[in-house]
Amino acid sequence: MTIDLEALYIDLHRHPELSFQETRTAGVIAATLAELGIEFEEGIGKTGIAAVIRNGDGPTVWLRADMDALPVHEQTGLEYASTARGTDPAGNDVPVMHACGHDMHVTAMLGALEKLVHTKDEWSGTIVVVFQPAEEYGAGAQAMIADGVLDRFSRPDIVLGQHVTPLPAGVIGVRPGTQMAASDGLTVTLFGRGGHGSRPHSTIDPVVMAAATVMRLQTIVSREVDPRDVAVVTVGSIHAGLKNNIIPAEAKLELSLRYPDDAARARVLEKVERVVRAEAAASGAERQPEIVTDHTLPPTINDAAATARLTAAFESAFGDGSVVDPGMFTGSEDVSWFAREAGVPLVYWFWGGVDPQRFADAAAAGTLDRDVPTNHSPFFAPVLQPTLSRGIDALVVAAKEFLG
Amino acid sequence: MTIDLEALYIDLHRHPELSFQETRTAGVIAATLAELGIEFEEGIGKTGIAAVIRNGDGPTVWLRADMDALPVHEQTGLEYASTARGTDPAGNDVPVMHACGHDMHVTAMLGALEKLVHTKDEWSGTIVVVFQPAEEYGAGAQAMIADGVLDRFSRPDIVLGQHVTPLPAGVIGVRPGTQMAASDGLTVTLFGRGGHGSRPHSTIDPVVMAAATVMRLQTIVSREVDPRDVAVVTVGSIHAGLKNNIIPAEAKLELSLRYPDDAARARVLEKVERVVRAEAAASGAERQPEIVTDHTLPPTINDAAATARLTAAFESAFGDGSVVDPGMFTGSEDVSWFAREAGVPLVYWFWGGVDPQRFADAAAAGTLDRDVPTNHSPFFAPVLQPTLSRGIDALVVAAKEFLG
Amino acid sequence: MTIDLEALYIDLHRHPELSFQETRTAGVIAATLAELGIEFEEGIGKTGIAAVIRNGDGPTVWLRADMDALPVHEQTGLEYASTARGTDPAGNDVPVMHACGHDMHVTAMLGALEKLVHTKDEWSGTIVVVFQPAEEYGAGAQAMIADGVLDRFSRPDIVLGQHVTPLPAGVIGVRPGTQMAASDGLTVTLFGRGGHGSRPHSTIDPVVMAAATVMRLQTIVSREVDPRDVAVVTVGSIHAGLKNNIIPAEAKLELSLRYPDDAARARVLEKVERVVRAEAAASGAERQPEIVTDHTLPPTINDAAATARLTAAFESAFGDGSVVDPGMFTGSEDVSWFAREAGVPLVYWFWGGVDPQRFADAAAAGTLDRDVPTNHSPFFAPVLQPTLSRGIDALVVAAKEFLG
Amino acid sequence: MTIDLEALYIDLHRHPELSFQETRTAGVIAATLAELGIEFEEGIGKTGIAAVIRNGDGPTVWLRADMDALPVHEQTGLEYASTARGTDPAGNDVPVMHACGHDMHVTAMLGALEKLVHTKDEWSGTIVVVFQPAEEYGAGAQAMIADGVLDRFSRPDIVLGQHVTPLPAGVIGVRPGTQMAASDGLTVTLFGRGGHGSRPHSTIDPVVMAAATVMRLQTIVSREVDPRDVAVVTVGSIHAGLKNNIIPAEAKLELSLRYPDDAARARVLEKVERVVRAEAAASGAERQPEIVTDHTLPPTINDAAATARLTAAFESAFGDGSVVDPGMFTGSEDVSWFAREAGVPLVYWFWGGVDPQRFADAAAAGTLDRDVPTNHSPFFAPVLQPTLSRGIDALVVAAKEFLG
Repeated sequence: MTIDLEALYIDLHRHPELSFQETRTAGVIAATLAELGIEFEEGIGKTGIAAVIRNGDGPTVWLRADMDALPVHEQTGLEYASTARGTDPAGNDVPVMHACGHDMHVTAMLGALEKLVHTKDEWSGTIVVVFQPAEEYGAGAQAMIADGVLDRFSRPDIVLGQHVTPLPAGVIGVRPGTQMAASDGLTVTLFGRGGHGSRPHSTIDPVVMAAATVMRLQTIVSREVDPRDVAVVTVGSIHAGLKNNIIPAEAKLELSLRYPDDAARARVLEKVERVVRAEAAASGAERQPEIVTDHTLPPTINDAAATARLTAAFESAFGDGSVVDPGMFTGSEDVSWFAREAGVPLVYWFWGGVDPQRFADAAAAGTLDRDVPTNHSPFFAPVLQPTLSRGIDALVVAAKEFLG
Repeated sequence: MTIDLEALYIDLHRHPELSFQETRTAGVIAATLAELGIEFEEGIGKTGIAAVIRNGDGPTVWLRADMDALPVHEQTGLEYASTARGTDPAGNDVPVMHACGHDMHVTAMLGALEKLVHTKDEWSGTIVVVFQPAEEYGAGAQAMIADGVLDRFSRPDIVLGQHVTPLPAGVIGVRPGTQMAASDGLTVTLFGRGGHGSRPHSTIDPVVMAAATVMRLQTIVSREVDPRDVAVVTVGSIHAGLKNNIIPAEAKLELSLRYPDDAARARVLEKVERVVRAEAAASGAERQPEIVTDHTLPPTINDAAATARLTAAFESAFGDGSVVDPGMFTGSEDVSWFAREAGVPLVYWFWGGVDPQRFADAAAAGTLDRDVPTNHSPFFAPVLQPTLSRGIDALVVAAKEFLG
Repeated sequence: MTIDLEALYIDLHRHPELSFQETRTAGVIAATLAELGIEFEEGIGKTGIAAVIRNGDGPTVWLRADMDALPVHEQTGLEYASTARGTDPAGNDVPVMHACGHDMHVTAMLGALEKLVHTKDEWSGTIVVVFQPAEEYGAGAQAMIADGVLDRFSRPDIVLGQHVTPLPAGVIGVRPGTQMAASDGLTVTLFGRGGHGSRPHSTIDPVVMAAATVMRLQTIVSREVDPRDVAVVTVGSIHAGLKNNIIPAEAKLELSLRYPDDAARARVLEKVERVVRAEAAASGAERQPEIVTDHTLPPTINDAAATARLTAAFESAFGDGSVVDPGMFTGSEDVSWFAREAGVPLVYWFWGGVDPQRFADAAAAGTLDRDVPTNHSPFFAPVLQPTLSRGIDALVVAAKEFLG
Repeated sequence: MTIDLEALYIDLHRHPELSFQETRTAGVIAATLAELGIEFEEGIGKTGIAAVIRNGDGPTVWLRADMDALPVHEQTGLEYASTARGTDPAGNDVPVMHACGHDMHVTAMLGALEKLVHTKDEWSGTIVVVFQPAEEYGAGAQAMIADGVLDRFSRPDIVLGQHVTPLPAGVIGVRPGTQMAASDGLTVTLFGRGGHGSRPHSTIDPVVMAAATVMRLQTIVSREVDPRDVAVVTVGSIHAGLKNNIIPAEAKLELSLRYPDDAARARVLEKVERVVRAEAAASGAERQPEIVTDHTLPPTINDAAATARLTAAFESAFGDGSVVDPGMFTGSEDVSWFAREAGVPLVYWFWGGVDPQRFADAAAAGTLDRDVPTNHSPFFAPVLQPTLSRGIDALVVAAKEFLG
């Protein structure tokens, strides 16, 4: 058999699913694994799948792909753009889009498995494949580990994974050391006192409290972090009130924080809490704000030796100049938990999804940040090829490098 | 027959309905009118009702009560507190509560009609009663006028109406001239550019744009309006984003503005627009904000002569000290449209709904604004009596004063 | 003799002096009093003068004029504009201008005294005249009282005073009850931690702390005061830092607060302190801000009976329509201390200084606030006539009304 | 002769002078050079001095030390702390302190010259020494170049210089490539409209305009710069108003900006201008803000080959571990102009001035930023030894390395 991978990708792209709701996606994966004759288990960490290919003695290499999509209203204009909707954890009906490329991750992984199955004579050892849910909530890897995924087949000697990004299609980006930032997701609830929109003095206005908090949070990065250090304090959502003439009783902020390491994490979290509490006090709030940590992601740190070995393998396979150091990314991942928990090395690399000419033009004009949509943008979409084929080959090269 | 008004009030309180959705409420009213043998028409201005009592020669007095409730989560702790939910115009599922006392308005009006029907020998002329929908959207009066309500029965010689407020139960508040403020409701949409929460530099962050706008809007009242003039710029709702790690593409603000007259309206609206556009420019927005006026309410101006006459009638009926000048209210009403359109005088008065001892205690402690919930608060609830009986009597006294 | 009052006014205007430094001004006054043969004492309350005219039995009427100027750079373009400079309390060299019209107050008072001296047959009793220093610091009246001014000649039966304002020349403005607001002047010092401008993370930036404080203070008036009440929170000065590349260790704000009465004062002061302390906390300040009250001015409350009597006298003297109710002014005065301390009535009125045609044109265009400079503006300057003559006559009419 | 260098340092520390006013400092240098028998010229670039030591054939090495101090109120508590005052360019009387260690630079340079003069047999070539004024204004190097300093003695083959910093005393910090950031100093004048503090509506409040501008400027670094890039936007001073009850007509901000290169400079400057203009528009300003560039400093870029050579020489002289890569500093320097103008390599290094035990303790506690005062802090003061001896030796080692 030969999987029609392009059709499979388009199908996944058209049917994105929110975190921990990837049931249709898991079904597509399961059906393909079955067609390929690969042993697998479903429902690990709610909607996750793990598969295994045993091929004699040798190391156990783990390959990981994530599956979930995002509450984004797709605006790519693609013929196969998503019009799907879903229900978020708060019960809201929201648009859903594969705005982070996990559909490409799944497709490339299935393509790689097909190749690895058909070239068993070229390698020996064990491949464990993890199709992880809920990467966007930073919760899927831990959910699979809690469900015992590490011990179901064979514990890893190394964990490998990849992410499609706004590099030129064909290019691999990887570096030793910190590849992606640590991150926390916080929900902050500010408590005011509601009342009539025409009588602000009888209320404690949570909208003003929230606005002042957002403005003050900016000063953490602008004034309190060493300009040479990486730190991000994003307020990704703000919600308060239902009607212009009612001052609501509370406001909700959702924050995404980024830092290079755990020491920086502690410092920034302390500052965020300080600002939030002080701005509530400035409003005369009668109840302390609530600050809840929704998820915590470790930094994604590439093992130095394994990264050097893999870089050489990629350059050998794809040619000189095909691998670049992309710098540390401020994005975050939960893939590390598999390697951390198992106590083994991790290598996590990026592969490009942008039409090379478009990338070159934007780079020449100095407008990369504006003209090349990044992950999570409603305009994000990898070019199908050569993105897909390079993603497949990268997984195959990497797996074989660390197998026998 | 005798209506059980207290049971009717509690029933309405338990079943609040959002603006232009007052079908159950209208059903209760229609059934009661039918029981009283009063002629009426339904479905005027979508869910409104108008009724008429003809009783020989004499002036035509219009009495108006509004019917709609608000998207507020009731927290009064009352045995008959609302647990209702509704769907707001944006399609959101929201809690609903009679947080503005319109249930009391309807009940008092039905009680007054019963009395007026049973005392036809004491007056002559025509009473037209308007049960108006969607006062909270500032849209119901105009909708009924557009449906021809002014000409269906008999055009008014005077329009009368009342509102329950945080005065002591038993007290009437009314003043000649401007009794309530003019108002506009605006929806402001700010356009940024979405992207990944870890890459703010590739976005134009609409959350920060919105927060800066809210903070800057405060300076209109604090710096640009004569401290002796009344002005309110409330941002009653702010919404942007669905997830902590996605910077959204836009933010929405809903504003409620208050002013004493149309000249002030023009000045404040110009300032709001100036601030909104400049803050978008400060963010480097690539698209101009949209500013939409959702409703416009005129000032509620009591006719001087009619107010003097009514004040005397109230004092005669209820005793010296029972009528106070409550000052101008910053709340707004659309009742004026009936009188404006017909070119006749209006008197619109407040009546108290707070337990007198509670009011006195809070006044003595200087904590009225904090301890006595105002309209639109989740804690707002008139004491049933003597609020209801005084509301009934006030309508009866007022109607008779201006009838033959 | 006849004083050349216009020349005297121009001389004073050219030689303005800051508060408690009015020595040249006092010299001009003393010389003129001597020429008029009026008994006086100098040096009361540092630079103040009190004079007395005894003329038989009858009441004692106090007339008060203030003498000091302001640190404003005059931009009126007048031929006799000030180019003077002075040293403020902080030791800074500053421009000085009679931007509040006290030069006109002094001149009108001297003109009135000349008339009263020459018409002694028309009145009986005692006139005490107070030329008060340092009204702009809110400190001069109390300084004169501390120096015993109330007992040096004859205690008042009534205290009278007047202020030139942006009403049309010829018009008197006065009202019973609260004529001018109560006020406090505060100095707030915010403490950060200084350092190199390129290393903000090693500092606590007091410039950002001050900016956030100023923005948050706006919300007191916009959100926390009843829109129907008068309140002003002005940050009149902000100072921090000496050089772009040094983050300073502290910032200073000077605030001017206005309210109608002492209860409002207490509420607003509490809010100001709450905001200042919370914003310091939001910055992580290691030292509490210092909040010092520089002066406290009571509300200026006109005695109802005396005001009615005086209004009638003005209308009789100047014609119907010559007296208007100007509403409460948000400006403040320390003249009240003389009446408060003596326990006698006060009447304090405004008189117009704007060319009537210019006023009428601006009023018609709705641009009064923009086109007619107010007191303390660098463009403020009364037209010399009929401002001066009406100011003289108003004092004469008022004094005679309350004398025998 | 032997110079008493410690006494000389203490003398300079006690007598700091502001930029372009370093006449006493220049006098001390001139006297010492004369004692050492070194040829020199004074008054180059106003208060600068250049000296030359000719010693046969060989390269020409330029050594540079800067001389000026800062308007900072010293709070070190040192027995020899400065109590000096000076007059800044705006005419203000200000405290003055050697808060950047230029007194140590001068002293170390004189000590090195003494050694080099006494060891002429160990080197050949020409040493040109530049005692530069006004580094803190970013103006002194260009002023000396404009005065022809490059051609007065002998053009450089290499330019060397050093700066004392919060590294442990004894440690040298240097790196190839960008060692210090590019920088601009801007003065921004915001124009409002002045008036009485009690009548904000008749004014355009420049204090609020300035505060909003400061808050919005924070978002450039927090939202618009790649978190991985270095950028600083500091508002080092803010000044508006003279008195609490006068709203002033304008406000002044002084900004210090930092970036790694000229492309980033262009981007940040554009954003700063955008924010400043938009915030003036948000206030309804009638006059555009003025934005003046006071100085522009290039990045300080160390020549790679020369830095490698010098690093080896330092390690050879001072031992392994004595040289560290301090990373890029966000501080800026104008020393580059000498090398840029001459088209020759530059090496600029840091040397430590902190007691090693104190440094180690703070590093262990993670409180370096808080507990070790940085340059420009009122608490900054190098420990005298071994700071001075290491500074002398570093210059001697470096000069000899590049001489014959």
